[in-house]
Amino acid sequence: MTPELPTPRVTVDADVLERNLQAMATRAAARGLALRPHAKTHKCLEIARRQVELGAAGLTVATIGEAEVFAGGGLDDLFLAYPIWPSPQRAARLRALAGRVALRVGVDSVASAEALGRAVPGLEVLVEVDSGHHRSGVQPRSAGEVAVAADRAGLRVRGVFTFPGHAYGPGRQRPAATEEAAALTEAADAVTAAGLDAGVRSGGSTPTATFTGVAAAPGAQGAPTSPGTPTSPGALTEMRPGVYVFGDAQQLELGTCDWTEVALTVASTVVSRSGPKVILDAGSKVLGADHQSWTTGFGRLLDHPDARITALSEHHATVLFPDGAPVPSLGEVLRVVPNHVCATVNLADELLVLSEGTQVDRWPVAARGANT
Amino acid sequence: MTPELPTPRVTVDADVLERNLQAMATRAAARGLALRPHAKTHKCLEIARRQVELGAAGLTVATIGEAEVFAGGGLDDLFLAYPIWPSPQRAARLRALAGRVALRVGVDSVASAEALGRAVPGLEVLVEVDSGHHRSGVQPRSAGEVAVAADRAGLRVRGVFTFPGHAYGPGRQRPAATEEAAALTEAADAVTAAGLDAGVRSGGSTPTATFTGVAAAPGAQGAPTSPGTPTSPGALTEMRPGVYVFGDAQQLELGTCDWTEVALTVASTVVSRSGPKVILDAGSKVLGADHQSWTTGFGRLLDHPDARITALSEHHATVLFPDGAPVPSLGEVLRVVPNHVCATVNLADELLVLSEGTQVDRWPVAARGANT
Repeated sequence: MTPELPTPRVTVDADVLERNLQAMATRAAARGLALRPHAKTHKCLEIARRQVELGAAGLTVATIGEAEVFAGGGLDDLFLAYPIWPSPQRAARLRALAGRVALRVGVDSVASAEALGRAVPGLEVLVEVDSGHHRSGVQPRSAGEVAVAADRAGLRVRGVFTFPGHAYGPGRQRPAATEEAAALTEAADAVTAAGLDAGVRSGGSTPTATFTGVAAAPGAQGAPTSPGTPTSPGALTEMRPGVYVFGDAQQLELGTCDWTEVALTVASTVVSRSGPKVILDAGSKVLGADHQSWTTGFGRLLDHPDARITALSEHHATVLFPDGAPVPSLGEVLRVVPNHVCATVNLADELLVLSEGTQVDRWPVAARGANT
Repeated sequence: MTPELPTPRVTVDADVLERNLQAMATRAAARGLALRPHAKTHKCLEIARRQVELGAAGLTVATIGEAEVFAGGGLDDLFLAYPIWPSPQRAARLRALAGRVALRVGVDSVASAEALGRAVPGLEVLVEVDSGHHRSGVQPRSAGEVAVAADRAGLRVRGVFTFPGHAYGPGRQRPAATEEAAALTEAADAVTAAGLDAGVRSGGSTPTATFTGVAAAPGAQGAPTSPGTPTSPGALTEMRPGVYVFGDAQQLELGTCDWTEVALTVASTVVSRSGPKVILDAGSKVLGADHQSWTTGFGRLLDHPDARITALSEHHATVLFPDGAPVPSLGEVLRVVPNHVCATVNLADELLVLSEGTQVDRWPVAARGANT
């Protein structure tokens, strides 16, 4: 019997995690795509190293701080998929990183390309394009212009990238993957037409991972492809899913993972109980407050798929059980599947690693809070 | 000129903070209420000590972990406003705490009172009642039953408490304060009728703070009070606001703080820009993802009250500026007012303390992540 640990605590099922890591590695290999997992999800050196052992080309990171942590842990090929603005301190940190590891960063404007070129000469960059998420990134047709500015500024252009974040919505995964492929193709063509290297065409997310590299199925299956349609599966050379390592309630509700693929849960105690309602001691300060309009609540319960988390405050999750269902007792420990696992990990100092219910390890969340 | 610091960074205006601390201390004193600020908002020893210097009766905390941090920092009168379930490790921690500081905890059921009495004999408790927020807490009429169970179990009953969280909504502050006063009065009457001590009647939140202790204004002003109406201002003896120290965008939008009372902002860099839209490098991993249906977005900008944060991802805030307004440049640093400041602080390792724009101190977020 494991000694009692405090709740709420963040636990990882090592066996489910390993299956998830292997499945995505196999999928990427089968499609001829480089896999560069986004490490912002797990922030753990142990998982990053296993991803590379299983064939990942390198890691994706979101911040210079994350890049510093993973570089310090021996991960030597990092893509900072973010439109970096090179203030003096950021530029100094980027120069230091580029001297230690293979580093690429994102760029999404002529102005930032020029600033980045002055600040970190010779840095490798990918031009970020907007494939429909409408966050950062230029329109695909403008990728050539940014690439030319980057090249003139002394950066080394290596290709284009996008994040199809608009795949986060019911039924949006296939269309978003198709739009992603089209955007990367158009952007790569623009960069190539400008005489520059578009060898890397990087996209992907966990919701689109089923379709990445096979989005233009009619063409891939030999059906006629009219001019201008996506040239997938050749459109992408690299995929960057993150959440697949753990799964979460958003992925469950999108249908992009199933219950057997959920590797991370938050063990939480029933502290109050009234009729079909219980209060758990895991709130937004542990789970994160992410709540998209299309989710059914603020997370799910791994062992009670019909229950719903109807409200979340900082230290309370309000859970409703369906009519007639047995309601857990005071003091019972339940496993919460957070809505958005990246937020949960960023709130934890360590992950308790279990195998068949027994604790086998503790992994520090090495890049927790590395948000600058 | 201060050397450049990374963004996103969490900064506190010490002068605004001091004014906020003094104003609430003055308000509580003027109403004859004990002030027991909720320390979950700031999680900082420096602010806790200043609250006590200004007359606070003690602190409120949300978790045993927070209580341990503040006890370790010399704060010696703590109310753990939470329905604790005393598992063996929690009971041991509570016994240790009760030996170091004046400690009270919440209890909201007969079963948890009995368990708590066995686990931590002699512990002081307040019975939690539901005043309309419908989270934890018993119905006010049941407070006597829980108090009797607590007393029989060997706990020392000291009164009742509630959290009027249903004040978080437009126009809800005065009605919630009235309901709070009524619930505490009914609960205290039930405890007194059972022959037990209801000397502490503790409520309050930042949204209700304007009305706490004066909710039943007609009675207070000498107008006739029909039987059964709240007996405020005497209903409460203690108030527990938390957010007032910093303010946040939720309070701005509720009208319960004004722009001059916002003490905490997140300095964030413009990293991408397109038409009226800019992307800032502060996302949900720094600001928190809290987004109530009645807020206008995911936070506000202190220096651009007409701009709106229309989307938030982990490391990107999408900000829209109104038609014709000047749009900040790439690299410019803006001050974001988070929606819910408690979440922001819990994501930060330290607060940079400014006075008139110059850094004067750094305060560790001592209780960051102390969520068990």
